[in-house]
Amino acid sequence: MAGLFISFEGIDKSGKSTQAKLLVEYLQGRGYDVVATYEPGGTELGREIRGLVLNRKSHAEIHAGAEMFLFAADRAQHVKELIRPALNAGKVVISVRYVDSTLAYQGYGRGLNLQDLNAIQNVATRGLMPDITVWVDVDLQTARKRGWGTGADRIEAEDEAFFHRVRQGYEARCKAEPNRIFRVDGTRPISDVFGDVKKRVANRML
Amino acid sequence: MAGLFISFEGIDKSGKSTQAKLLVEYLQGRGYDVVATYEPGGTELGREIRGLVLNRKSHAEIHAGAEMFLFAADRAQHVKELIRPALNAGKVVISVRYVDSTLAYQGYGRGLNLQDLNAIQNVATRGLMPDITVWVDVDLQTARKRGWGTGADRIEAEDEAFFHRVRQGYEARCKAEPNRIFRVDGTRPISDVFGDVKKRVANRML
Repeated sequence: MAGLFISFEGIDKSGKSTQAKLLVEYLQGRGYDVVATYEPGGTELGREIRGLVLNRKSHAEIHAGAEMFLFAADRAQHVKELIRPALNAGKVVISVRYVDSTLAYQGYGRGLNLQDLNAIQNVATRGLMPDITVWVDVDLQTARKRGWGTGADRIEAEDEAFFHRVRQGYEARCKAEPNRIFRVDGTRPISDVFGDVKKRVANRML
Repeated sequence: MAGLFISFEGIDKSGKSTQAKLLVEYLQGRGYDVVATYEPGGTELGREIRGLVLNRKSHAEIHAGAEMFLFAADRAQHVKELIRPALNAGKVVISVRYVDSTLAYQGYGRGLNLQDLNAIQNVATRGLMPDITVWVDVDLQTARKRGWGTGADRIEAEDEAFFHRVRQGYEARCKAEPNRIFRVDGTRPISDVFGDVKKRVANRML
């Protein structure tokens, strides 16, 4: 049996991790063998890379290209060490963030060339794309109410314009690949959002 | 005045760092403003990346793709933070290792796709290639006499076949770009090798 690969995407404080966790528990409760993971940091190497990128105290300035390649290194290791073997063993893999984050943040957000990014992602993932991607969409007011902009990590401190560009990036990705990515309105209560997630994922798993 | 970018390449224990250092001192003695640097590790971020890649105790297995992207991150930061500004300021930049190392080690050595590597290097460097590359070539017997294979870092522990492939990679690069890369026979005494380096670099600088 082939595995199933689901990614969750969205801006910080969108609730994507909460929704991913609920889906993991739900599918486990239905007897699926589920691997819960995330980027950057799903492997030992990845956790060290995550520390390099997100700890702004020791690195006042990481240039956009270097940041993108660090995420690519994390992803290459993640796919090879964890995601691909789990899928080959027939498991369900649920990752908080995957390639769409790079396109949205480093592409739309930081302005790196999208064609270059796609080519690099293709090398990093060896062509492995999620079967289903859940984009948990919130506006900035909602994100701010949940604490966006108060975090200590480097990327959260970027300005609002950046986050608008990232959100536009997710929207563009969603429009370009409607069969893979679906948007859920993340501004509602957690259980309402999860009702949508569950229904949409179930539709695609059948 | 435009700067000048010189890289030194070769397998471990080839003597490339020694030759680079002699050239730095020689050019400084002639009044040039010289920046001496190296990869991986020419920047603060780069030194942390170097620690991740070369410390095999904490990372028994870094997959080839992840390793290559970590080096690309180091290089992107290096070019943007250090090399490009120094060249723009009219300085001479001398780096121990640059793109040819990736092609030789990750391409020829580890078998990653050369076309992908070239495309990725082009993104990482923004097209910046050295004006002059000195390939310090030694055979494995010479490298072994100098301590090759006894080091503690991860890459030095690879087998001999790997190093033969890397050497072949440098040879192929040298043949493909004879106007940029020149080979010096690194098996001779240091001062003899440097005599060649000095003469060849001087020819190209005039």
